[in-house]
Amino acid sequence: MTSTLSESLKKYSVSIIGASGYSGAELTRLLLGHPVVELQELYAFSQVGNRVSDLYPALGCDQVYKQYCGETESDIYFLALPHGEALQLVPSLVQSGKIVIDLSGDFRLKNQDEHQEFYKQVKSPEAVMTYGMPELFRNDIIKGKAVSNPGCYASSIILGVAPLFPGTESSIKVRAINCTSTSGISGAGRSSKTELSFSEMSENIRAYKVGVHQHIPEIMQALGTSATNPSFDFTFTPMIGSLVRGIYSILNVQLEQPADPAEILDLYHRFYKQAPFVRVRETMTEVKHVVHTNFCDVHIARVTGSGSLLIVTALDNLLKGAAGQAVQNMNLMLQLDERTGLL
Amino acid sequence: MTSTLSESLKKYSVSIIGASGYSGAELTRLLLGHPVVELQELYAFSQVGNRVSDLYPALGCDQVYKQYCGETESDIYFLALPHGEALQLVPSLVQSGKIVIDLSGDFRLKNQDEHQEFYKQVKSPEAVMTYGMPELFRNDIIKGKAVSNPGCYASSIILGVAPLFPGTESSIKVRAINCTSTSGISGAGRSSKTELSFSEMSENIRAYKVGVHQHIPEIMQALGTSATNPSFDFTFTPMIGSLVRGIYSILNVQLEQPADPAEILDLYHRFYKQAPFVRVRETMTEVKHVVHTNFCDVHIARVTGSGSLLIVTALDNLLKGAAGQAVQNMNLMLQLDERTGLL
Amino acid sequence: MTSTLSESLKKYSVSIIGASGYSGAELTRLLLGHPVVELQELYAFSQVGNRVSDLYPALGCDQVYKQYCGETESDIYFLALPHGEALQLVPSLVQSGKIVIDLSGDFRLKNQDEHQEFYKQVKSPEAVMTYGMPELFRNDIIKGKAVSNPGCYASSIILGVAPLFPGTESSIKVRAINCTSTSGISGAGRSSKTELSFSEMSENIRAYKVGVHQHIPEIMQALGTSATNPSFDFTFTPMIGSLVRGIYSILNVQLEQPADPAEILDLYHRFYKQAPFVRVRETMTEVKHVVHTNFCDVHIARVTGSGSLLIVTALDNLLKGAAGQAVQNMNLMLQLDERTGLL
Amino acid sequence: MTSTLSESLKKYSVSIIGASGYSGAELTRLLLGHPVVELQELYAFSQVGNRVSDLYPALGCDQVYKQYCGETESDIYFLALPHGEALQLVPSLVQSGKIVIDLSGDFRLKNQDEHQEFYKQVKSPEAVMTYGMPELFRNDIIKGKAVSNPGCYASSIILGVAPLFPGTESSIKVRAINCTSTSGISGAGRSSKTELSFSEMSENIRAYKVGVHQHIPEIMQALGTSATNPSFDFTFTPMIGSLVRGIYSILNVQLEQPADPAEILDLYHRFYKQAPFVRVRETMTEVKHVVHTNFCDVHIARVTGSGSLLIVTALDNLLKGAAGQAVQNMNLMLQLDERTGLL
Repeated sequence: MTSTLSESLKKYSVSIIGASGYSGAELTRLLLGHPVVELQELYAFSQVGNRVSDLYPALGCDQVYKQYCGETESDIYFLALPHGEALQLVPSLVQSGKIVIDLSGDFRLKNQDEHQEFYKQVKSPEAVMTYGMPELFRNDIIKGKAVSNPGCYASSIILGVAPLFPGTESSIKVRAINCTSTSGISGAGRSSKTELSFSEMSENIRAYKVGVHQHIPEIMQALGTSATNPSFDFTFTPMIGSLVRGIYSILNVQLEQPADPAEILDLYHRFYKQAPFVRVRETMTEVKHVVHTNFCDVHIARVTGSGSLLIVTALDNLLKGAAGQAVQNMNLMLQLDERTGLL
Repeated sequence: MTSTLSESLKKYSVSIIGASGYSGAELTRLLLGHPVVELQELYAFSQVGNRVSDLYPALGCDQVYKQYCGETESDIYFLALPHGEALQLVPSLVQSGKIVIDLSGDFRLKNQDEHQEFYKQVKSPEAVMTYGMPELFRNDIIKGKAVSNPGCYASSIILGVAPLFPGTESSIKVRAINCTSTSGISGAGRSSKTELSFSEMSENIRAYKVGVHQHIPEIMQALGTSATNPSFDFTFTPMIGSLVRGIYSILNVQLEQPADPAEILDLYHRFYKQAPFVRVRETMTEVKHVVHTNFCDVHIARVTGSGSLLIVTALDNLLKGAAGQAVQNMNLMLQLDERTGLL
Repeated sequence: MTSTLSESLKKYSVSIIGASGYSGAELTRLLLGHPVVELQELYAFSQVGNRVSDLYPALGCDQVYKQYCGETESDIYFLALPHGEALQLVPSLVQSGKIVIDLSGDFRLKNQDEHQEFYKQVKSPEAVMTYGMPELFRNDIIKGKAVSNPGCYASSIILGVAPLFPGTESSIKVRAINCTSTSGISGAGRSSKTELSFSEMSENIRAYKVGVHQHIPEIMQALGTSATNPSFDFTFTPMIGSLVRGIYSILNVQLEQPADPAEILDLYHRFYKQAPFVRVRETMTEVKHVVHTNFCDVHIARVTGSGSLLIVTALDNLLKGAAGQAVQNMNLMLQLDERTGLL
Repeated sequence: MTSTLSESLKKYSVSIIGASGYSGAELTRLLLGHPVVELQELYAFSQVGNRVSDLYPALGCDQVYKQYCGETESDIYFLALPHGEALQLVPSLVQSGKIVIDLSGDFRLKNQDEHQEFYKQVKSPEAVMTYGMPELFRNDIIKGKAVSNPGCYASSIILGVAPLFPGTESSIKVRAINCTSTSGISGAGRSSKTELSFSEMSENIRAYKVGVHQHIPEIMQALGTSATNPSFDFTFTPMIGSLVRGIYSILNVQLEQPADPAEILDLYHRFYKQAPFVRVRETMTEVKHVVHTNFCDVHIARVTGSGSLLIVTALDNLLKGAAGQAVQNMNLMLQLDERTGLL
């Protein structure tokens, strides 16, 4: 992660708004080690005045969290804020010509009604951001300067089934997807809720937001359809388990027609041929295989003659599901190799 | 758990064959605290000569593991052996008129071909044992003396959907069930496999045996159909996570017809009205709610107008999924309150 | 834990004030299963109106938490309150002739100055309670009706070294004890602190209150000396690790004179001969050996010729370190076998 | 960790003998990301023919483990073998002029009798290696080409007390050190022992090798004395807890004379002024503060007027306790900034 050899290069200045949460801390770590950017300001709220080293000693960083008051001195801004708080900040940053990457859900959905239903908030209409999933929208990301970074569950699910959707291969048609995902508890943020305490969550599993999770419309939109008028039946059950990091998704897919295992596997390999961070694996994947990396592993565990697929994906919710993917998006917008600072 | 007040009662003698594994240890604990039985012999294999207190100090029991050589002195025999090893022992115990409860999969399946396919073993034909799930087959259990105790995953799945099957309510018809279950690692037994070491499994999740788990035919049989010729589509993905005990099952059920939430809930309440260990819960259940108990919690998390149900169940794999249910079966065969020694 | 066989016996009524915390929940579980008491009222504060089954579904208890307004209808009162809150309640309960067992630190210290220094509170002088460690003060407990239940760390430490102190064997003299103890996180109570969240504490260890923990004067007092004017040098470092339950103490003891291993072992065996819950073990103990039990394991790991002892103890902080010991004390005051309801 | 910007630089070739264990895997990860070395061969034993990606998918490395047959093509050799197996390999590698870093205990002890006593092995006399703790022996390491890398516990303990030893400050004299250390279970290697399984070690703590651990003579030697003829009394109790990585050491130090807190703190700051990986921290350290880093945190928690110090240290056993420190040593021998590839 050292950049000692590249000191002479021109570096882009980058700041993080909302730097003190878990995603912000991972961004801090990645950007400190990134060879072509220089970390400028770390903005926070309740932690203003504290040092990074107070909250995250492992980062080895003594910078002080500041309050954000509309500054636009940096070349690049990451926003890692609770949902709703980026709504006011993103438009002006975009207008001032900055590279902006928002990790919240505020600008992910194009359909205002769905945003309102799933986020219980009115969407600010001023900024149009590209949905930052490089494996699906690489060209759009490269051309633009504003990216809405995908959700963690959404990433693990979309990447697991994207090769099955029209535009990629015409002969395949998805009838239904039933998904259960288990997330590390860091996905709930740096929290003080009793229900997320060690004593409550150690050796525990808990499902929540069954059928109403806000990533549902995001997934449908990325797959070319919508939650309001879906082209296939989608069921999603998120869970938290006794792990800090990682998302493990089990995707049961029903196709309209019989499927050939070799053909399906080939389809996935072709779809992800240029994607350095998605690995189509021939053996079962595990959370441990991807944690602390930006990889999303995809394993096709079973294909039946009747057109039923069982796909397992794994990623690190704070990396490929948040900060890692955000840096991958930044790399693309800076016309860098998308792996820069991530391997 | 003390039985100091009931010393004067006549007690049944009970022995455990295969007492040194995790299920055997739980059986030991439960039977030591049971008011109407007396623990006679603990038979083991690799642990012969060792004391219970060497392996399981928490049990506070100094009995010595012995080798089983065909003894039939006890009134009741529990067998908690690896699959295949009860095949030879059960028939003669049954013939000698003992109460026999086998915790393995050896006598669960009536269909010999399915047994051979899923267990890779030929089934011994001499003993016919009742499938020991009290909530479905209480009367059969009470009348008999030989019970094949259900599998842990099977218990968590069958109890989650049993009220939806014919014979109980005629208007409901299940089209498909897609199930993912996460099990505690104790389900793999007292093991020395690298892949089950703490360093590999802490904060990890791993799916396995996708579509080929041996509990699949057991579940289908208990629900009145078969894996060979199923009346509904069944997909099952088992996983192990970073917990020692517990099974958490997410059951996505498709009915043939629309469903009314109140009606479904009522159906479950009626089905389990007499079942002290199945709790139909109105709020989300968690592993923590049932661990170290014999309860199986069932929560109907979602019923859609299109006939899609999302049901969550939780139980302790070593209790309601093994030793607890075995004692519940013993209680029934002894004509006791089925809760005796289990609350 | 069932008491179905003893329904005809006279039962004592018992209530818990502060029933909704972790110690209160363990008390609830133990008393529900106790053969000679009947659980009457569960008093709580923030949880008034909620059911036990809402907070602790595993207990299988539907009782409703009530507000305590000075009631004295029960025969026995347990208080499991945060430090300071029992100060006002205990005196009147004691005066009304009830059996009272207080699990807080409010009445443990006889020295008012030490109480004020370590608890930052003025001690109420009206009630004199016996220090409820049966292994040291069994006769005093049996004769009285009011017990101050020992602290969790204190129990694990006192029981590890008590046989070495005067009155028991005159030839042994302790010069110094250096102790490090690792506690399960449930010791911090049912908490919503960020620093105790799963994401912060999983796979973590943290020392705290080095040299100032409030159990220090309690330990010194129980061993016949005082923190103010100690007869030996005592250093104590408490830690929390990534476990919910259990305390594991490493006690490095320096004697004034050389020690003989066999003699020391014999000393311990004699001291604990009548103590059913202290096990002097010949092999290393572990947290897993005692968790969910009322045992305190003591292992003398090393005795050097120079008089240095290394002693390891393990207990469950919520049982022998709190609720279990409290019930043990109740049993003694009721003139019952002290194991009743605890094995 | 990417080295894309430094492709044009001359790189040293490096191979790892014993690459498939946990330390070997961490070495692989660090060396893959190191800007001035190129990973040449990965030698293993039971894993010969398997790919790194089979065992450690997170490393994203497809290299195949080979059998070591005396090759000397690389510039640098790391050995990460079980104790005893490096004895035969190190001498010839050293003689052929390679840079050699041995992570085992085979060449740490100068005293042959102590080696024999604590490792139960005869020491091979041919190679003299420098003890590779940069904070104590930086100049010796820089000048040489063969380093014996310190043990994990030894690192955490030596770094916690080194500033107190003669040669550094004459007025301080240590009389006794009592140390308890809790290690992550990865310290036991990639293991298939039942006692290290998840089911046994989750939420557990276990002490072992009390007073006989092989790091004892190593620690004494590094501090300028010996286990055979010690200048101070040293007691060491190692434990494993329910965490994968990390060592947390509690060091209770008795000085011969009274100590002044400010003076002690100043002593530590001066001693570690030039050490980028030792952080003298003013607040309590935790395992979480150092895990996945090469830092060793040292916190002086308490200094009493009587000359008693309580020092807490934390490091990652696989990094500063093994692979990270090994790379730090390599950097020094290559005359690089010792942080290269480690931040």
